[in-house]
Amino acid sequence: MNFRSDNESPAATEIMAAIARANEGFVHSYGADPITARLDELFGDLFETEVTVLPVISGTAANALSLSLICPPYGMVFCHQHAHVNNDECSAPEFFTGGAKLRPLQGPGAKFTANALREAIEMTGAHGDHEPLPAAVSVTQSTELGAVYRPEEIAAITEVARAAGMATHMDGARFGNAIATLGCAPADVTWRAGIDVLSFGATKNGALAAEAVVLFRPQAEAGRRRSRAGHLLSKMRFLSAQLEAYIADGLWLRLAAAANRQAARLADGLEGVPGATVQRPVEANEVFAILPPAVIDGLEGRGIHLHRWPGVANQVRLVCAYCTRDEDVDAVISAARDAAQT
Amino acid sequence: MNFRSDNESPAATEIMAAIARANEGFVHSYGADPITARLDELFGDLFETEVTVLPVISGTAANALSLSLICPPYGMVFCHQHAHVNNDECSAPEFFTGGAKLRPLQGPGAKFTANALREAIEMTGAHGDHEPLPAAVSVTQSTELGAVYRPEEIAAITEVARAAGMATHMDGARFGNAIATLGCAPADVTWRAGIDVLSFGATKNGALAAEAVVLFRPQAEAGRRRSRAGHLLSKMRFLSAQLEAYIADGLWLRLAAAANRQAARLADGLEGVPGATVQRPVEANEVFAILPPAVIDGLEGRGIHLHRWPGVANQVRLVCAYCTRDEDVDAVISAARDAAQT
Amino acid sequence: MNFRSDNESPAATEIMAAIARANEGFVHSYGADPITARLDELFGDLFETEVTVLPVISGTAANALSLSLICPPYGMVFCHQHAHVNNDECSAPEFFTGGAKLRPLQGPGAKFTANALREAIEMTGAHGDHEPLPAAVSVTQSTELGAVYRPEEIAAITEVARAAGMATHMDGARFGNAIATLGCAPADVTWRAGIDVLSFGATKNGALAAEAVVLFRPQAEAGRRRSRAGHLLSKMRFLSAQLEAYIADGLWLRLAAAANRQAARLADGLEGVPGATVQRPVEANEVFAILPPAVIDGLEGRGIHLHRWPGVANQVRLVCAYCTRDEDVDAVISAARDAAQT
Amino acid sequence: MNFRSDNESPAATEIMAAIARANEGFVHSYGADPITARLDELFGDLFETEVTVLPVISGTAANALSLSLICPPYGMVFCHQHAHVNNDECSAPEFFTGGAKLRPLQGPGAKFTANALREAIEMTGAHGDHEPLPAAVSVTQSTELGAVYRPEEIAAITEVARAAGMATHMDGARFGNAIATLGCAPADVTWRAGIDVLSFGATKNGALAAEAVVLFRPQAEAGRRRSRAGHLLSKMRFLSAQLEAYIADGLWLRLAAAANRQAARLADGLEGVPGATVQRPVEANEVFAILPPAVIDGLEGRGIHLHRWPGVANQVRLVCAYCTRDEDVDAVISAARDAAQT
Repeated sequence: MNFRSDNESPAATEIMAAIARANEGFVHSYGADPITARLDELFGDLFETEVTVLPVISGTAANALSLSLICPPYGMVFCHQHAHVNNDECSAPEFFTGGAKLRPLQGPGAKFTANALREAIEMTGAHGDHEPLPAAVSVTQSTELGAVYRPEEIAAITEVARAAGMATHMDGARFGNAIATLGCAPADVTWRAGIDVLSFGATKNGALAAEAVVLFRPQAEAGRRRSRAGHLLSKMRFLSAQLEAYIADGLWLRLAAAANRQAARLADGLEGVPGATVQRPVEANEVFAILPPAVIDGLEGRGIHLHRWPGVANQVRLVCAYCTRDEDVDAVISAARDAAQT
Repeated sequence: MNFRSDNESPAATEIMAAIARANEGFVHSYGADPITARLDELFGDLFETEVTVLPVISGTAANALSLSLICPPYGMVFCHQHAHVNNDECSAPEFFTGGAKLRPLQGPGAKFTANALREAIEMTGAHGDHEPLPAAVSVTQSTELGAVYRPEEIAAITEVARAAGMATHMDGARFGNAIATLGCAPADVTWRAGIDVLSFGATKNGALAAEAVVLFRPQAEAGRRRSRAGHLLSKMRFLSAQLEAYIADGLWLRLAAAANRQAARLADGLEGVPGATVQRPVEANEVFAILPPAVIDGLEGRGIHLHRWPGVANQVRLVCAYCTRDEDVDAVISAARDAAQT
Repeated sequence: MNFRSDNESPAATEIMAAIARANEGFVHSYGADPITARLDELFGDLFETEVTVLPVISGTAANALSLSLICPPYGMVFCHQHAHVNNDECSAPEFFTGGAKLRPLQGPGAKFTANALREAIEMTGAHGDHEPLPAAVSVTQSTELGAVYRPEEIAAITEVARAAGMATHMDGARFGNAIATLGCAPADVTWRAGIDVLSFGATKNGALAAEAVVLFRPQAEAGRRRSRAGHLLSKMRFLSAQLEAYIADGLWLRLAAAANRQAARLADGLEGVPGATVQRPVEANEVFAILPPAVIDGLEGRGIHLHRWPGVANQVRLVCAYCTRDEDVDAVISAARDAAQT
Repeated sequence: MNFRSDNESPAATEIMAAIARANEGFVHSYGADPITARLDELFGDLFETEVTVLPVISGTAANALSLSLICPPYGMVFCHQHAHVNNDECSAPEFFTGGAKLRPLQGPGAKFTANALREAIEMTGAHGDHEPLPAAVSVTQSTELGAVYRPEEIAAITEVARAAGMATHMDGARFGNAIATLGCAPADVTWRAGIDVLSFGATKNGALAAEAVVLFRPQAEAGRRRSRAGHLLSKMRFLSAQLEAYIADGLWLRLAAAANRQAARLADGLEGVPGATVQRPVEANEVFAILPPAVIDGLEGRGIHLHRWPGVANQVRLVCAYCTRDEDVDAVISAARDAAQT
């Protein structure tokens, strides 16, 4: 049983079927195929506004490409200290932007506030040309610690950013999980809340390998930047087909809601385990908990994969995927109880 | 009917089946899955030597990543003027290397000789620190104009490179087509001929999106370079499965041979068309020809997709794919004859 | 006696005096000093328009910084094959732009024409996102082979550039020598002829180490780009003082005219040497000539430093500096005659 | 009177004289002159070991070039949060390295300990290819807050670095001030303590614009990296002459000692000012103090330039230069007392 990462889950049946359907004869390459041609409109419908969509195959590619569009080489990107762009992309943002500086912010649940951003911005400016230009802000939705920003929180952050002349990016590697929790329109927490560019993730939530850079404002030569990063697929149809199926008929939200539901069940169950502390809020599909060492060992001993979180003693992360079943969660809770009693 | 590019072909049945088979339950992500774990050995068997394999999803990624491993930012890469790395990757090599300089060489069929390389190297060195360091050579096999290097030609080139302290890369986007023509062992035209790094292509020849960077010599931190370029797939199994199926049981060579055979048939047929000149050698799966404008228009009017080659009047490229059928080629020849007579 | 390069000449008395005068007590650093404060206006007067001036200490810095302002990482810079930016800066333009592509053009005297540029531009565009964006043009004035563009030649080039949406740069490492020859206003061959950014050189013509990036159109964050390249001097006054003295009272033109005059004398004299061919035009301070090997050896044997030009048999370059004297030139001519007769 | 920065001081008489002496006739350019030729040996004598010296014109250039030699694009540089490389160089290290990540450490006086470094290193490694490779450590001597590392502190830091396979850099923009305080051999706190590369500063301490990158271990192609950054001066003799004069006869230490002495006097005097708190240790030429607002205003009102330190209320920095006089310091103390009593 695997709760280590939603990245370890298989691709959803609907996605696999869409890939198979796309495999019909010859079509033009590099995005000149009919499926790709539909994406701007389909995502435009989803987001209730005109958008440009650039499909890519990884979240790191989506984030780094997005940031390179809104932050110059001499710029500074504000993000949370625990942001994926700051910690888990081997300096891809620095690479794609040509050397921009990431400026980490603090805050519980890997969320930062508009005030924290404002204070950080106010600390810049005294050094003139000796310091990078505050240029961009990146928020993660849902966050790397499983929390979710409310639309008004995003709006407050982007208002501070806009006032300082900065552009805004949302890392939505788990965007579906956030929307499933919020119950709002995707627009409400993105462009209506002031977001300029969104990394819209699908891979963790059922796709094979598909993410979309969604531009709510036109950005110069995004296509050339994608191309020179090696991210313009020749057989683009297979990538676009995943994205099309993912947003068709609300599949993405159904899958995300399923994962969230299991995470909530898991959190509830773990709270009843002696010695366990679930680190609320569990607002998406990730559960962070402090567990007694014996429980951690016991779970792993029973073949349950989890993520021993680096840097915090006895902290683990358990992630529920779109395909995590009731019995899987039940089994974890039961195993944790057993281990706690031994 | 599509002869415009092998990139426009569908994925082969065997590849699709392998992807479907890989979609079983949870496995570890980012290359820690069992399929990826087998690749080094499988490719080692294929190449009769120890290798390290890094799967990526595009030829540009494979080439740019490869060059970044063997050429420093202050280095110079020698390649043919018509090389894909020089013309068709929107400066991806410059991006990945951090600003290296590509030094184009001349030669018919997009091939250059060891002598041409030697002369170009001899023209460097007079400017000291004012000029980039000759660091790497890149050859394309088969070339962008459909020609194939013989093992001894590659060996002569790499000997000149080695003598000048340079490392060597082969862009094998159509490597299968070259080997199908040469009939030699893959080793003979790569590491045994002095190649250090190979971009081993599969996408044009039946894969969905899969290329392998094959390292014949260890290169420091290739994995981190792949990661920061956004090319480390979370669900790597789907990429590795394509590569595994592609080289299993000689599928790659069967598919390439089929494409080559149709290209030879097509070339033969077009030579009989009044006013047509096939630009030999047709050694792989690409046919370059000068056709009367009426023939070009006639083919397109009959729904046959081809590539009007930029820069040369009345020159077209017709590419045969692994799945191009006898009747497709026959139809082109027949249509060309018709159009020539009108 | 040294005719190898004007870079080997000492600093002019007037420049040394200006540096000494600037060394009075404490002044604000990083360009907040009174001398630097005057530069925009002084250069504005010289160029008869509003300009922004960024002093730097090398021609490579001036060129690479300039190009980074007008060419994005995914852009293409058109320049002559023999351009300093293409050949003698160890890929500094690629480094500063973040990987832009230099596209070399041909033409005698290291000059290219508006037509050559137009044809090169027309060869782009067929590859879509696969090729870099034509973004900038760089011309050298006077050229690396000692020729000078007429204002109307520059205007024709920049018109082609502008029509293609490109910005324009002039490498004026020997700008003074060009103006001394043309006798026109500096404006006539720069912004009035459509140039956006000028590398205004002083080092080769009497300064200790001083070049100015002169912006005829505002460019975003040029200061931050200079800073992160390590080219923002703390004691900027010493750099600005050189530039101020250099353009005050026409010093720069007097020095350049003196150098040009000696080059003309040298060319005339060498033409009378048996077996020698001076490669006209000698329009600035550089003389290129094919000399009999015995003459080259003879000159060097008599302690006369010259530059054996790489790549062309028996070709030498002799450069006259602002401080080259009549007797120096006479001595070269006399030595060449002697050597030719032995 | 200026206590704002040693960067605002004039050049020392001895340095100006050396520049004037260097201005004799023609010499070879780009470092092929006799003065530059002597530098390796002169610095070798000073440091009691074989070294390679690359003169550059700014501290940012020295630091960024140094880091690019020892940290790859996918690497991580550990440094203090207040390090100049982290805060005051507009991402020059990121630019020169091609996107490396700076990892800030904490510690009083802008010093960090070997333990702090060890703990930070231990926090890496859990993310595999997703995080940059710990590659380099940079310490500043004396620090940005005026403190000085003891040789054994440096040795402990470099021992931790070495054990983790990392290389080490010292930012010695105020290296003379540190050595004047320590009284040890320059070797003791650099290569004997495990430092690989030193930015040896002269500009703040009497030079016009001169810093030396001193390599204690050979580094590949440092010259080409300098060249492509635009930092290879054509008239290098003027830069090398400053460095030669600076280290000849102990000038650098005499100048630094004079500055340190005045800083000590200034600190003593300010401690007697009501409401003032000097932030010890004052180990070099910088005094950090918390002063009553009225005192800060009073000093500025009396024409005394100081640096209101950003980020800390009522904190100022006063820097003594090599040429700060007894009466200047006395005047500050007296003015502060006056202002405190009003």
